[in-house]
Amino acid sequence: MSENYRELLLNEFPKIVEEIINSMKTKIPKLALDHLKKNIEYNVPHGKLTRGITVIETFKSFLNDADSEKLKKAIILGWTVEFLQGFFLVADDIMDKSLMRRGQTCWYKLESIGEIAINDSFILENILYKLLKTHFKNDKIYLELMNIFHKISWKTEMGQMLDLLSTPPNTTPNFETFTKEYHEQIVNLKTAYYSFYLPVALGVILASNYREDLNTKQLLKEAKPILLEMGKYFQIQDDYLDCYGDPQILGKIGTDIQDGKCSWLIVQALEIADENQKQLLYKNYSHDSPKSISIIKKIYQELDLDSKFHTYENVAFENLEKLIESLKIFPKEILRNFLLKIFKRKK
Amino acid sequence: MSENYRELLLNEFPKIVEEIINSMKTKIPKLALDHLKKNIEYNVPHGKLTRGITVIETFKSFLNDADSEKLKKAIILGWTVEFLQGFFLVADDIMDKSLMRRGQTCWYKLESIGEIAINDSFILENILYKLLKTHFKNDKIYLELMNIFHKISWKTEMGQMLDLLSTPPNTTPNFETFTKEYHEQIVNLKTAYYSFYLPVALGVILASNYREDLNTKQLLKEAKPILLEMGKYFQIQDDYLDCYGDPQILGKIGTDIQDGKCSWLIVQALEIADENQKQLLYKNYSHDSPKSISIIKKIYQELDLDSKFHTYENVAFENLEKLIESLKIFPKEILRNFLLKIFKRKK
Repeated sequence: MSENYRELLLNEFPKIVEEIINSMKTKIPKLALDHLKKNIEYNVPHGKLTRGITVIETFKSFLNDADSEKLKKAIILGWTVEFLQGFFLVADDIMDKSLMRRGQTCWYKLESIGEIAINDSFILENILYKLLKTHFKNDKIYLELMNIFHKISWKTEMGQMLDLLSTPPNTTPNFETFTKEYHEQIVNLKTAYYSFYLPVALGVILASNYREDLNTKQLLKEAKPILLEMGKYFQIQDDYLDCYGDPQILGKIGTDIQDGKCSWLIVQALEIADENQKQLLYKNYSHDSPKSISIIKKIYQELDLDSKFHTYENVAFENLEKLIESLKIFPKEILRNFLLKIFKRKK
Repeated sequence: MSENYRELLLNEFPKIVEEIINSMKTKIPKLALDHLKKNIEYNVPHGKLTRGITVIETFKSFLNDADSEKLKKAIILGWTVEFLQGFFLVADDIMDKSLMRRGQTCWYKLESIGEIAINDSFILENILYKLLKTHFKNDKIYLELMNIFHKISWKTEMGQMLDLLSTPPNTTPNFETFTKEYHEQIVNLKTAYYSFYLPVALGVILASNYREDLNTKQLLKEAKPILLEMGKYFQIQDDYLDCYGDPQILGKIGTDIQDGKCSWLIVQALEIADENQKQLLYKNYSHDSPKSISIIKKIYQELDLDSKFHTYENVAFENLEKLIESLKIFPKEILRNFLLKIFKRKK
């Protein structure tokens, strides 16, 4: 089913690009139109599209007999989250000094791009509001859609701020922030809201456009804590894969250690390390040298963080299954599908 | 009168900061709250506030007897444009590799900041939508306000794209774009819409919230071409001051020559230079070396661009005065005041 929705999304994509380009055709010169197109095509459609697919899946669960016009709205809404994701990723890669993303060179790292990438990220964000306006301006949910995007973007930006503040430039990490609590705040804000809560919320909101009987607020109130918990699990996987994942499969090369990130791994390590290991961690974490990185990785190995993660993963999965089982009004299969999509993911 | 409105704006500012900080107090740790506050206080209130003042002035022209509650809304709306401006400036300074802004070191250049500045710029943008939601969600103009900000941001980002594409990184400038037409498209999009059209439009829209008789669309349709023309004049001043202004007064140090910008000066120069001068311009423009920069400046001097600008300035002023005189329904004094504020400006 997901594969199907993926195809639906990808089939619609060229039309969305055309819509944007056509709207600017008489307003900016060809040189700029070409760049705009390249920005969109390079940075938006090459991910797993989990967020976009989830919008459609959620919507279809509530409106099984949606006609093609309604389905198209779900597809557009699916793409709006993917544009939001593109916006964040292009900018994050600059801030994290990353090299690869989705199996290709990071946009800002392309020789002809550089720092113009910052403005390109703004453009990706703004396109989502253009799409909302074009396709939803006459729907009663239009204002609700704009508001949720602003609200969730804000959460994500707050999370990104926490993430970046754990190691400011030209200094050692704020090790006092490397706690479970701070880490949980980061992942909740920077990942869980926009990657888990938002796509499901958009699906429900769109369904409520056609079904008067749906109580969006109640439904989302019940699903939200579980979605945020799934988001936490997803980000902890991300932290793990940044160090232990295969860059070939992952499509990116981890930079958490040299960036001095407050990652699940370093938080675990500092909790169980002995005094000697702790000193080494303090001394080498956030240093961008092969030697420092390998010292950190060696300690992670000594502390057996690899198997600690696998234990965590199984416990988190069981816990999430139980939480989903306890749902009273929200359809369980939506969250079950979502969970299965990320369980033991390698990318 | 302007001074008065400036004071009104500055008096309200601490309350706006407090409102934002309070809304996050229980949600993010102190370390992050402090950073958020510093970001806002460093990057938003230190400009001339012309845009914010214009919102209030325009509003008062249409609603002379506005009570304090209504006036407060105009002040908040004034600040929303200043937040938008902060968003653009923080990001532009990174992209243009600038050093100073408004008499202080650029935000991204501070030792403790660096590339987190990108996310900080997103936050400044998002605050404007938070302010709109808090203060206008129950007003009939709420949707219109959100839409105009998205629309004008889009234009600005398109203009910024054109601006940056005239000299991509690691290559020579696209000299074929250094024409009057391309330059006019840049300044129209990147400056005129958000700096001139937007503040006036916001003032009219807010007035229409209380005066049923105002036809926002008609009023803005008449004022728009003049505002865009003023924006063009303003940006040409900016191009001139980048090279000829006093950094002490200007609060910033020009980088247009080494950045390879499609500036009014280089467009003029290429139009009137002889073959020898042209070759020197082609060879040295966009090179970040003192020698190249001084070669360019010397040619500008040979071509007497300084006095060419002063001639342009006088002609533009007279032309704008005539345009304002021809207004039929839009109050002339609003645009006259706006024009007087920027005529022969040194900063």
